[in-house]
Amino acid sequence: MLYANHCATLQVCELDRDPSSWPTRNLLTRLFPCPGPPSLPPSWYGNRGPLIDPEPKFCHQCGSPLTQEIPQGEDRLRGVCKACGMIHYVNPRVVVGTVIESGNRILLCRRAIEPAHGKWTPPAGFLEVGESTLAGATRETWEEARAEVEILQPLVSIDLTRIGQIHIKYLAKMKSDDFEAGPESLEVRWFDYSEIPWDDLAFPVTHWSLRLRIQDRDQGSPHFHRGTLQWNQQGSPLDFSNYDLSDLQSWPLDIEEGNES
Amino acid sequence: MLYANHCATLQVCELDRDPSSWPTRNLLTRLFPCPGPPSLPPSWYGNRGPLIDPEPKFCHQCGSPLTQEIPQGEDRLRGVCKACGMIHYVNPRVVVGTVIESGNRILLCRRAIEPAHGKWTPPAGFLEVGESTLAGATRETWEEARAEVEILQPLVSIDLTRIGQIHIKYLAKMKSDDFEAGPESLEVRWFDYSEIPWDDLAFPVTHWSLRLRIQDRDQGSPHFHRGTLQWNQQGSPLDFSNYDLSDLQSWPLDIEEGNES
Ligand SMILES: [Zn+2]
Ligand SMILES: [Zn+2]
Repeated sequence: MLYANHCATLQVCELDRDPSSWPTRNLLTRLFPCPGPPSLPPSWYGNRGPLIDPEPKFCHQCGSPLTQEIPQGEDRLRGVCKACGMIHYVNPRVVVGTVIESGNRILLCRRAIEPAHGKWTPPAGFLEVGESTLAGATRETWEEARAEVEILQPLVSIDLTRIGQIHIKYLAKMKSDDFEAGPESLEVRWFDYSEIPWDDLAFPVTHWSLRLRIQDRDQGSPHFHRGTLQWNQQGSPLDFSNYDLSDLQSWPLDIEEGNES
Repeated sequence: MLYANHCATLQVCELDRDPSSWPTRNLLTRLFPCPGPPSLPPSWYGNRGPLIDPEPKFCHQCGSPLTQEIPQGEDRLRGVCKACGMIHYVNPRVVVGTVIESGNRILLCRRAIEPAHGKWTPPAGFLEVGESTLAGATRETWEEARAEVEILQPLVSIDLTRIGQIHIKYLAKMKSDDFEAGPESLEVRWFDYSEIPWDDLAFPVTHWSLRLRIQDRDQGSPHFHRGTLQWNQQGSPLDFSNYDLSDLQSWPLDIEEGNES
């Protein structure tokens, strides 16, 4: 089911834009089931397992095998448990983080964990149940950079539809000068915006987030950007140049730039 | 683990704000495991099951019983499968929707499904894997109101930490005059903003989303708002007056109001 949705998006994504085409899209998805996700290099597999969640095969409430069917009143396949009746929904996960600035500098972490071990990224991680996006972004910043930050503005909300993730990044500033590498980081340091290690950034979403922020800085005009990161289905899914940011919408914020420090 | 996190948030939420208190918070959570979520009225149980996901008991990959333990390098309990090694992460789900305006009117749907059967709400529903927040909001609008809309601006991002949901709503306008009740709606109609059925709105998040939008309209100043909906732990969790919107941050958008139609 997960792969079917995934595949529908990759292969017939144009059909997603027009509601009147959705019956056709759903039919296509059923007629041509997806062979599975593209094979990924080992570095995509971290301590959270594969980036694309495997399709559930057993009921997590009673342990019985699941059946794939379209529940009454729905329009797509779900894992259904015939033993206890539970329907197993798989939904995107949210990744929250901060882009921390001080003057012309940005704080980046070099990752000590897979995926993208040794690569640079602003602090970010999976939102947990029980915390707000604000609390999650702050927690991840503490865990990875041992920095306490104040949130200034929403910067980007980027959908990674291929792997079922939404990345929400806030622009932030330090509450104090203190920081150090947390257990998930090899190193944490300031980079001048003119020195960003573009060839050693962790993920395509990292690249696009920084690129959008630099554009705002160059124009002196802060924005909140949302877009969809689309893999071109060719080349490495780790290389940003194989992605487009589609559906980009950028809303100007009527705020002062908060980086006078 | 889900309930433990949930409980940590409800009972020691002040400790969440200060990173230096997190070891204390985590210790408290382990010493005083949560008795489970508060009992909810039947109307909270819909065709997606209980609003709060039950804690996973079995591995969805191999069907073996899960053990609750703190994986190496992490700081909280997870369901771990000793048979196949899989760690089962439970993360918040994203609900996407649209607040559709035409002049002084807003389009609301009367729900034909639980939870909140018979109550009014803007179109909204769970984001699916493979779609962007934009595509999800558009799809839900079609499914519930058979309306095709153009997204104008982000309106609210409200965290429902108690039940592990993030609600993202976009302000939108109709592409045509056509709409009708979809299968999940009893009725769809325009309401003048002076006639909102406040006592028959579906959810506390509905109430707060409309309230924030009306504030923006009254001030002639569009904003993107984010906040955390906090239940006061007393009274019905369906009654908006038992909630506060905490951590509210509202960023003014430098755009024209798009409702000249
Ligand atoms: Zn079952
Ligand atoms: Zn297993």
